[in-house]
Amino acid sequence: MALGGIIDGCPAGLEIDIDFVKSELQRRKPGQSHITTQRKEEDEVKFLSGIFEGKTTGHPIGFTIENTNQKSNDYEHIKDAYRPSHADFTYQEKYGIRDYRGGGRSSARETACRIVGGAIAKLYLKHLNISIQAYVSQVGHIKLEKKYQDLDLSKTEESIIRCPDAATAYNMVSYIEDIRKEGNTIGGIVSCVIKGTPIGLGEPVFDRLHADLGKAMLSINAVKGFEYGEGFNSINFKGSELNDAFTSTDGKVNTSTNHSGGIQGGISNGQDIYFNVAFKPVATIMQDQQSIDKNGNEMAVKGRGRHDPCVLPRAVPIVESMAALVLVDHILRNKTSKI
Amino acid sequence: MALGGIIDGCPAGLEIDIDFVKSELQRRKPGQSHITTQRKEEDEVKFLSGIFEGKTTGHPIGFTIENTNQKSNDYEHIKDAYRPSHADFTYQEKYGIRDYRGGGRSSARETACRIVGGAIAKLYLKHLNISIQAYVSQVGHIKLEKKYQDLDLSKTEESIIRCPDAATAYNMVSYIEDIRKEGNTIGGIVSCVIKGTPIGLGEPVFDRLHADLGKAMLSINAVKGFEYGEGFNSINFKGSELNDAFTSTDGKVNTSTNHSGGIQGGISNGQDIYFNVAFKPVATIMQDQQSIDKNGNEMAVKGRGRHDPCVLPRAVPIVESMAALVLVDHILRNKTSKI
Amino acid sequence: MALGGIIDGCPAGLEIDIDFVKSELQRRKPGQSHITTQRKEEDEVKFLSGIFEGKTTGHPIGFTIENTNQKSNDYEHIKDAYRPSHADFTYQEKYGIRDYRGGGRSSARETACRIVGGAIAKLYLKHLNISIQAYVSQVGHIKLEKKYQDLDLSKTEESIIRCPDAATAYNMVSYIEDIRKEGNTIGGIVSCVIKGTPIGLGEPVFDRLHADLGKAMLSINAVKGFEYGEGFNSINFKGSELNDAFTSTDGKVNTSTNHSGGIQGGISNGQDIYFNVAFKPVATIMQDQQSIDKNGNEMAVKGRGRHDPCVLPRAVPIVESMAALVLVDHILRNKTSKI
Amino acid sequence: MALGGIIDGCPAGLEIDIDFVKSELQRRKPGQSHITTQRKEEDEVKFLSGIFEGKTTGHPIGFTIENTNQKSNDYEHIKDAYRPSHADFTYQEKYGIRDYRGGGRSSARETACRIVGGAIAKLYLKHLNISIQAYVSQVGHIKLEKKYQDLDLSKTEESIIRCPDAATAYNMVSYIEDIRKEGNTIGGIVSCVIKGTPIGLGEPVFDRLHADLGKAMLSINAVKGFEYGEGFNSINFKGSELNDAFTSTDGKVNTSTNHSGGIQGGISNGQDIYFNVAFKPVATIMQDQQSIDKNGNEMAVKGRGRHDPCVLPRAVPIVESMAALVLVDHILRNKTSKI
Repeated sequence: MALGGIIDGCPAGLEIDIDFVKSELQRRKPGQSHITTQRKEEDEVKFLSGIFEGKTTGHPIGFTIENTNQKSNDYEHIKDAYRPSHADFTYQEKYGIRDYRGGGRSSARETACRIVGGAIAKLYLKHLNISIQAYVSQVGHIKLEKKYQDLDLSKTEESIIRCPDAATAYNMVSYIEDIRKEGNTIGGIVSCVIKGTPIGLGEPVFDRLHADLGKAMLSINAVKGFEYGEGFNSINFKGSELNDAFTSTDGKVNTSTNHSGGIQGGISNGQDIYFNVAFKPVATIMQDQQSIDKNGNEMAVKGRGRHDPCVLPRAVPIVESMAALVLVDHILRNKTSKI
Repeated sequence: MALGGIIDGCPAGLEIDIDFVKSELQRRKPGQSHITTQRKEEDEVKFLSGIFEGKTTGHPIGFTIENTNQKSNDYEHIKDAYRPSHADFTYQEKYGIRDYRGGGRSSARETACRIVGGAIAKLYLKHLNISIQAYVSQVGHIKLEKKYQDLDLSKTEESIIRCPDAATAYNMVSYIEDIRKEGNTIGGIVSCVIKGTPIGLGEPVFDRLHADLGKAMLSINAVKGFEYGEGFNSINFKGSELNDAFTSTDGKVNTSTNHSGGIQGGISNGQDIYFNVAFKPVATIMQDQQSIDKNGNEMAVKGRGRHDPCVLPRAVPIVESMAALVLVDHILRNKTSKI
Repeated sequence: MALGGIIDGCPAGLEIDIDFVKSELQRRKPGQSHITTQRKEEDEVKFLSGIFEGKTTGHPIGFTIENTNQKSNDYEHIKDAYRPSHADFTYQEKYGIRDYRGGGRSSARETACRIVGGAIAKLYLKHLNISIQAYVSQVGHIKLEKKYQDLDLSKTEESIIRCPDAATAYNMVSYIEDIRKEGNTIGGIVSCVIKGTPIGLGEPVFDRLHADLGKAMLSINAVKGFEYGEGFNSINFKGSELNDAFTSTDGKVNTSTNHSGGIQGGISNGQDIYFNVAFKPVATIMQDQQSIDKNGNEMAVKGRGRHDPCVLPRAVPIVESMAALVLVDHILRNKTSKI
Repeated sequence: MALGGIIDGCPAGLEIDIDFVKSELQRRKPGQSHITTQRKEEDEVKFLSGIFEGKTTGHPIGFTIENTNQKSNDYEHIKDAYRPSHADFTYQEKYGIRDYRGGGRSSARETACRIVGGAIAKLYLKHLNISIQAYVSQVGHIKLEKKYQDLDLSKTEESIIRCPDAATAYNMVSYIEDIRKEGNTIGGIVSCVIKGTPIGLGEPVFDRLHADLGKAMLSINAVKGFEYGEGFNSINFKGSELNDAFTSTDGKVNTSTNHSGGIQGGISNGQDIYFNVAFKPVATIMQDQQSIDKNGNEMAVKGRGRHDPCVLPRAVPIVESMAALVLVDHILRNKTSKI
């Protein structure tokens, strides 16, 4: 079994920097630091179509990522198991058949494909001077208290946890080391900031920009919540406090605050878009758990293998990738808003 | 201008109880209590197609809701205004033209159509013994501390705020009365519980059941956040604490806890589905605000008219409706999961 | 029951000439001449949304066409009948329920909605200097032998049969009069020519421009065949004879012949697009026919009512409308072919 | 560059006979007889996902077909050429970039992927006792005069031209040999018969079964026309002659004739579905042709290489494949027609 996919709808003429695609895959790759899984996967992408002489042709971009390290006997012990909070049971029931190797399609390894698509999307956004930067803002109880405006997001990649504040990053890493030692896992929050979005992206009713961003984030493994702008915190404001007053300077319309998170009525207003994504602790732990097998018999799911105590640092490029794909979709869609 | 829409894809042979559709519209209707807007709208739905002799025909169900009370001169004063945190500015920029009457399409009055579609969907779900119940769990700082399992959700409709706990409901209503007196608005949380969902709804990667629920909720006016199962609170658990152990009784698979919120790997596992939706305070307040008009000139947006100090009670049936539509979509889609 | 629909995806800012929409409906309307049905339908379109101060707003254009003349007792006699070559039987089997009034949704009256959508599309095409002209080129054995290049298509509306050649038109009308007298029906061919199409419309594989035109035409009631360019006649050429040589004049690329019909590799090449659509004689005849009812009992379907001996003249604007909708879809889609 | 694709939406649990897929590819393969191109392509399909232990898993079926024989220098001479009646010009204009190797995506080699998808679809149809058989019924002026009812379609594969009538097949082959000797090409007609279709496939308005079949056929390279049932010949009948009378035998409804071609009101009625597809002579000929290059300069396109004098025999499995895909789509879609 190999990973792969097709990126459809990419306009022709976009220069594809393959090294950038590879560097994005490196950010998601297992084994990149001692706080991620030590599993070795090469994640080598091979493009099969849609790119010619370094540019997109307007045709579907097909690609595969070879699986160089899969040992199928690694999975014999979970062949019939319903691992707690995994998709084994639901897949078996939905399809009546299940590829148990590595979780099959429910494996988070699938997100490598999202990185490839996201990297192409980012190249398109770069061309339009739109930037996306995600970072880890919370791990368990350790929370980065500063707002994104008070952070130097360019420092995100300097820590292995991808938190731009050095002191908080240090605490997060220490905490994850403890979690790993006990064979456990922990969740947290990835925050994301998009700058330079043109005004007008998003559709008025069902396909609001934030609704599509939310769906994209909720489609990532282990995500349990999404909020944008002030999000759940909006409850603590009255309308008169939360409304963003419009101002005009030299013909350019801005808002004096940005509680809205850059989207009003589902449509981007040109201000920064920012949102939070909540990740639960991943279900695979290095401890024994009671469960059942597919025949309903009780069994112990043994903790073993090579897994992540905390997926947050590897989730950062995935969040960015999904955001990039949503933005590009809406940029293309918006080309037909006026005659 | 009238409201209306088309419900596509409804299977043939479903009995349509028109009185139920009307009663659902009553739950969203303005003027239903002293804590909602006193605007009078009749919301009379008229079905134009797709129903014959009381049953669906398998064809698109077209309907209109006549606007009996719109006074177009009500809106002359906001014709050129960019009201703070409204969609006036973004619509104007996106389309170069804007129907300013009542906010045009950005008006929350659009949600009456969602109620109609949701009511049809609920009739289908009822047929399958699936129930959806939403309720208000927070208004500003006033929070219902009990979990849904400890509440009698059948009491939801007994209070005008649609909170099933009488004491909390009383506090919420009092608070909203205060907010209204100062011409302000306040947000809160709508919680929703779905019982009886069959195993197997949801698609494995992008169209996970919770991702589609999330998108549906985020498409409702004033929604800023969505979480399901333990949601953002998942961060406070370790993997070993959050995992839901499988158990088997008489051949039926259950989980001993339900932190997952009834969805695993994006697919329903037969347990209760529950989620929270955060609503900001609505932007229209009865206070004067500074803003600009579409020519960039400063102007005061005067607070006047007939608006809601808190949309939460009227949002309850909208949340249910959107949940019902998502579930039916996935029920139909799931009919092709196996040969 | 009323007719109606929603035109989705129309860009904002298009001026809508309501009189033009009405005049297009007049071209399809029953009773427009003595060779069409004498049934009286007013076909008055009422727009409900999406147009403001004479221009499209970028939102869905909802509309209804009231049915002013339906007498539901007209249909009591066919309530249980399976009329030969009608959709009664297939609808009943597919849905288990059937709105028998006027054929319900299978009635060709549905095409009035296509005219409304097509009229909006034509207004957009006019804006881009693209013109579509259809005409009747064959009725039964009476065939217009001239090619479109040798005809003055502006004379199409001068005859009630919508054939631009006066002599042929006369013969067609005489023949239809005979057919009507015997209570029978006859089919024929509608030809269509599109001028001014920009280069580049159509997608390379499945959504080729001619494939979408073909599907659109085949979706019209009573259509049995579609061919474009040389069509079925291509069989009578060798490759060396059929190929269209490219020429270049003043930097503009043309072809010296146009056997291709303006589309190569599924994509428009800027030459005239032309195609033929074959209509069978309509199934409703003024003669008694043997058939069965829905219980399998033999019965006679009595010929009565007010029907068309030949739908061709009324089909002309429908063919144009569907062509216009396909073209506009591809024009919008093509806006994203390049970065 | 490799060929490949993703088959989405295939239900889980379908047994995949890989040998059948391979045998279908053999029917399309170049070099299978002396009247097809002598180009050597191995067309080895490799499945990457969606099949596990011989059965479909309900997940996308990814596959690639390696290109073992492409010599990219074969195409240097056509790099800038606009070959007559090819897609070179339209691709260049639409995308501003063009992969000229082997015609890139416009190459008919793309149809190998349709065969793979079609083979999977046929396995599903076989499971439902639905059969599809196409054959060559005309090559240039040589026409098989018999109707499909009077032919033994099981003999189709016995001749290299895939015409089930031995005498006509002999004449077709002789004629193609002559055409090949003069370096020319010739077109013809592929006829197709579908038996065993359940009643109820097809949607009432735009997605009529024959409209989707027509679009699918028109999406095949070199196709110029489509007709079903009596098709263009319907013009030669009066309504009273063409209508198919319903009969009932032992509770089963049939029609005494089948001019309709098994589809009424866009929906299958259980009778045989039959249709014709017109192919033009392919554009690549072994003769020199005048044309221009992409700079507008006149140039001669030299006839050379390894091409088909007549694509009809290789088109037979492609027609069947596209028909199978359309049928399966409608079978899946029809699962939601009733509650």
